[in-house]
Amino acid sequence: MMFNGLPKAVRVYEVGPRDGLQNEKAFVVTEDKVALVERLIAAGLKHIEVTSFVHPRWIPALADAERVAAQLAHRIEEISLSALVPNERGLDRALAAGLQEIAVFMSASETHNQRNINKNHKETMAAFRPVFARCADAGVRVRAYLSTVWGCPYEGQVDLEVSVGLARSLLSMGAYQVSLGDTIGIGNPLQTDHILQAMLSAIPADALAMHMHDTRGSALANCTVALARGITTFDSSIGGLGGCPYAPGASGNLATEDLVYMLHSMGIETGVDLEQLIAAGQLAEQFLGRPLPGRALQALNACANPGKTPQT
Amino acid sequence: MMFNGLPKAVRVYEVGPRDGLQNEKAFVVTEDKVALVERLIAAGLKHIEVTSFVHPRWIPALADAERVAAQLAHRIEEISLSALVPNERGLDRALAAGLQEIAVFMSASETHNQRNINKNHKETMAAFRPVFARCADAGVRVRAYLSTVWGCPYEGQVDLEVSVGLARSLLSMGAYQVSLGDTIGIGNPLQTDHILQAMLSAIPADALAMHMHDTRGSALANCTVALARGITTFDSSIGGLGGCPYAPGASGNLATEDLVYMLHSMGIETGVDLEQLIAAGQLAEQFLGRPLPGRALQALNACANPGKTPQT
Repeated sequence: MMFNGLPKAVRVYEVGPRDGLQNEKAFVVTEDKVALVERLIAAGLKHIEVTSFVHPRWIPALADAERVAAQLAHRIEEISLSALVPNERGLDRALAAGLQEIAVFMSASETHNQRNINKNHKETMAAFRPVFARCADAGVRVRAYLSTVWGCPYEGQVDLEVSVGLARSLLSMGAYQVSLGDTIGIGNPLQTDHILQAMLSAIPADALAMHMHDTRGSALANCTVALARGITTFDSSIGGLGGCPYAPGASGNLATEDLVYMLHSMGIETGVDLEQLIAAGQLAEQFLGRPLPGRALQALNACANPGKTPQT
Repeated sequence: MMFNGLPKAVRVYEVGPRDGLQNEKAFVVTEDKVALVERLIAAGLKHIEVTSFVHPRWIPALADAERVAAQLAHRIEEISLSALVPNERGLDRALAAGLQEIAVFMSASETHNQRNINKNHKETMAAFRPVFARCADAGVRVRAYLSTVWGCPYEGQVDLEVSVGLARSLLSMGAYQVSLGDTIGIGNPLQTDHILQAMLSAIPADALAMHMHDTRGSALANCTVALARGITTFDSSIGGLGGCPYAPGASGNLATEDLVYMLHSMGIETGVDLEQLIAAGQLAEQFLGRPLPGRALQALNACANPGKTPQT
């Protein structure tokens, strides 16, 4: 009744090395970043956002973008390695690094867009135009993030028609996919159903991805609705790394291992090996020197012994 | 499409003071336990499992069951205060304390049942019979937990027909509701749909409750399916307290505030005040001296400032 059909397979788009590590205050050395990406590749992930060609003054944590890309250059043929690109200067760097895919980002909320990238919607689209054109010339794929679709920290509710319009514009400019973001993790399943109904009336399912945050524990509930609606690309971050820079214990990004666990248990293929994924999460915990918020990662071994108190 | 209808209101059944605190190694003083329950009542919760009349050798953390119940006695008229009762000796104590509701527990998995309460299914039912009979005589309501419905740490998959049969038996013996437990937090939404389809073909929705664990982050995804199927009682634990005794950072029970946040954002009434609920969680964190795993609790304030890195 509830599930008339589910995708047989899903693409997991890993954002941890970029979206996760960008907020780290203590600089993570290039070798650790590359080792993490290699572990994620070993776990079977084929789509990984590895760094950001944003100015190092903005994101000092990813100031080594060129070095990360260079050390992963031998993987570009085999794995879709992407990087966040804010403008043409960033694109220059991404193209010089030989990447075959980049990601651009904007917000469905004008206020959030203004505060996040210092432009309004119109200015943002104008700045995207040469980026898309040059990518088309270079045969580089462009993915677009559309954030705050579920709500904005400044504006609250975001106009769904505006979101759909922006998503369509990004696709018509040449993005192969728009990743819809619940940036502050306030989305609920009913709202997700409503948003996707509107999006899917204008956009094919495979041109959409879900970028859900687990800030209030509902990321997988929202993903469940998206699966029932036929969405087949889901963004996630190893260990739940990143997405909420101001509290070590709090969670932001949906943890890749939680997503993969649920998908596999529903019989949906991802091509990812959960054990190796957990190992990648443990590597990140090692070099960061703290536990990560991903549920499955924390649960590992911890609950193996069911204990003596009455279990209900 | 996905949601043909959702309940207008949901009953949140709080298990934190019992299911949460039962695993605490350092004894929580009676005053703190009572203060927590009072905060939960202040937040609007009407159904609270406050302690367990299990032998103190089994659960030393709840050895003060009589004192807890006595200090809350003035609430019994107004709030449904329940306690876990394993046998007739426990029932004697619960009745002496004047409780109007008790909870019994068993497992859908024979092996788990045997290890958890040292009886097989048949012996368990036989032991329940006088408990139910005496409760009927005393006008005391009985709730039943049926754990490991989604899977067992010893047996793996659990026979759904056995689970449905046990749930029906518990109801026919006099339980007003059976709370179905995903005891080790391995359930997925597709499986939940399957389980509830079978349960609801034999049992009315209001005689069932969901007791989901968030061990792998999918508790609210499973609850979403249950809402779509018309279930209107959900168990949860303040702060996500308890349910996984062996790792302080790992999560077990679904956090009440995560559940309530999602329900409210879907327009489903609970009668609970989220701010006061958070205050109850903070109180528990204070007297336990550690952060609790509930997502919303951790997120509070932490993500208020969206930061300078590109938010996607």
